[in-house]
Amino acid sequence: MADHWQECMEFAVQVAREAGAVVCAALKEDVFVMVKSSPADLVTATDQKVEEMIISSIKEKYPSHSFIGEESVAAGQGSTLTDNPTWIIDPIDGTTNFVHRFPFVAVSIGFAVKKQVEFGVVYSCVEDKMYTGRKGRGAHCNGQKLQVSGQKDITKSMIVTELGSNRNPEVIKTVLSNMERLLCIPIHGIRAVGTAAVNMCLVATGGADAYYEMGIHCWDMAAASVIVTEAGGVVLDTTGGPFDLMSCRIIAASSKEIGERISKELHLIPLVRDDDKKE
Amino acid sequence: MADHWQECMEFAVQVAREAGAVVCAALKEDVFVMVKSSPADLVTATDQKVEEMIISSIKEKYPSHSFIGEESVAAGQGSTLTDNPTWIIDPIDGTTNFVHRFPFVAVSIGFAVKKQVEFGVVYSCVEDKMYTGRKGRGAHCNGQKLQVSGQKDITKSMIVTELGSNRNPEVIKTVLSNMERLLCIPIHGIRAVGTAAVNMCLVATGGADAYYEMGIHCWDMAAASVIVTEAGGVVLDTTGGPFDLMSCRIIAASSKEIGERISKELHLIPLVRDDDKKE
Repeated sequence: MADHWQECMEFAVQVAREAGAVVCAALKEDVFVMVKSSPADLVTATDQKVEEMIISSIKEKYPSHSFIGEESVAAGQGSTLTDNPTWIIDPIDGTTNFVHRFPFVAVSIGFAVKKQVEFGVVYSCVEDKMYTGRKGRGAHCNGQKLQVSGQKDITKSMIVTELGSNRNPEVIKTVLSNMERLLCIPIHGIRAVGTAAVNMCLVATGGADAYYEMGIHCWDMAAASVIVTEAGGVVLDTTGGPFDLMSCRIIAASSKEIGERISKELHLIPLVRDDDKKE
Repeated sequence: MADHWQECMEFAVQVAREAGAVVCAALKEDVFVMVKSSPADLVTATDQKVEEMIISSIKEKYPSHSFIGEESVAAGQGSTLTDNPTWIIDPIDGTTNFVHRFPFVAVSIGFAVKKQVEFGVVYSCVEDKMYTGRKGRGAHCNGQKLQVSGQKDITKSMIVTELGSNRNPEVIKTVLSNMERLLCIPIHGIRAVGTAAVNMCLVATGGADAYYEMGIHCWDMAAASVIVTEAGGVVLDTTGGPFDLMSCRIIAASSKEIGERISKELHLIPLVRDDDKKE
């Protein structure tokens, strides 16, 4: 069978590389920061400029396709996933890192058809690492095939997650108590590099055994979710049930065993679904 | 004035690069893991082999100098800092990362004379970043001069720290409650890459505004402490008082203001000093 979406994926890689070059160039200039939902939820003019650049490039080539982009949604556009081919875009995953020049920032471009992610491209531009995953055809980083660790024993696991940008004291308490229960299992450790997409790609490389987070969005997860599964990993809901791209939460793991074990320790945070927001 | 220790520093860079090559090569092989003080405190044959390699190279050239090395201390040798020129060595800072191939592992070589750190070399070998700091002569990474962010406003700060390898439930509670108080100030975020030396070098680059940790050791801090101060930052005790290399705790910050502000939020963890341990 011909790979119907291969051309789209190649185009996504090219667009992500161009966008990453703009992001990296902007890191050398002064960054003007604006605040979104909390004092720790930041956005910059570069986020908006890069998203416009990505969407206009793709729209020109694929005018009938749909788009869900972080900054377009912030500007009031909808984020309902339909059956139409849909590009799900985060121009800068790790905006707080970008603001601080903490060296992990990624351009994330996912592509879904009939609500299934067909491919994902995550370009970690400071590291110059181009991660790709194509449904049924594997995951790669700079051309090298990726494979999760396959670890099944939680007590030998390294987990990546984030403290997040929500500064509601109750949410912070839940985030930290989830970490506490995992550390006490015990596990080997917890790391946080500040971008969901790169954290998930680290699971795909085998460098971490699992990632979980609540309070992120479809544009943070879409591309990297297929990179993880194509590297042999699993994606689950934080309840342990099936992954739902619009649910704002995920466990990405090197094995079903580790993913389900983590879900047992997690207390849930109340979230508004991405497709439940005002349009 | 001639720089008396410049030759030693150049030799340290050469030795760190050779050691880093061995560490990177070992990342491609199977890693056999042993446990030290807790199920999360790991050591490998590579740690021991690389430390022996570093110490024997330096001893051959500087037979009268003293040594404090993580693995030598673990094997029962003392860690009392005297006035004699002393090399303070961590062959693999980030052993848990090394075990998992999480891509931050560093060779750390500090050099103290009369108990003052004269220079420090941190080689983050997977990234191929050679950080150096020479007292009175600045800090560099791969030849480029380093400068801390200079941030003084804690509410605009990004902090790096670690969950640590201690799995005592009371210690974990204190570690997490310290994070909770900082997040609630609020701050922009917390990151953790899994090595004290690289975390501190990230402060020196300006990528993070501060690092703090309790329960680390002189070999984790010696080299990077002078890299931070030579990049314009400060090192403090976690009480806010003067930094003490043997105290097992540190705040490394882009400004005195941020360092002292962090110290106000930290509850202390009971620690045994590095120079208080049995010899």
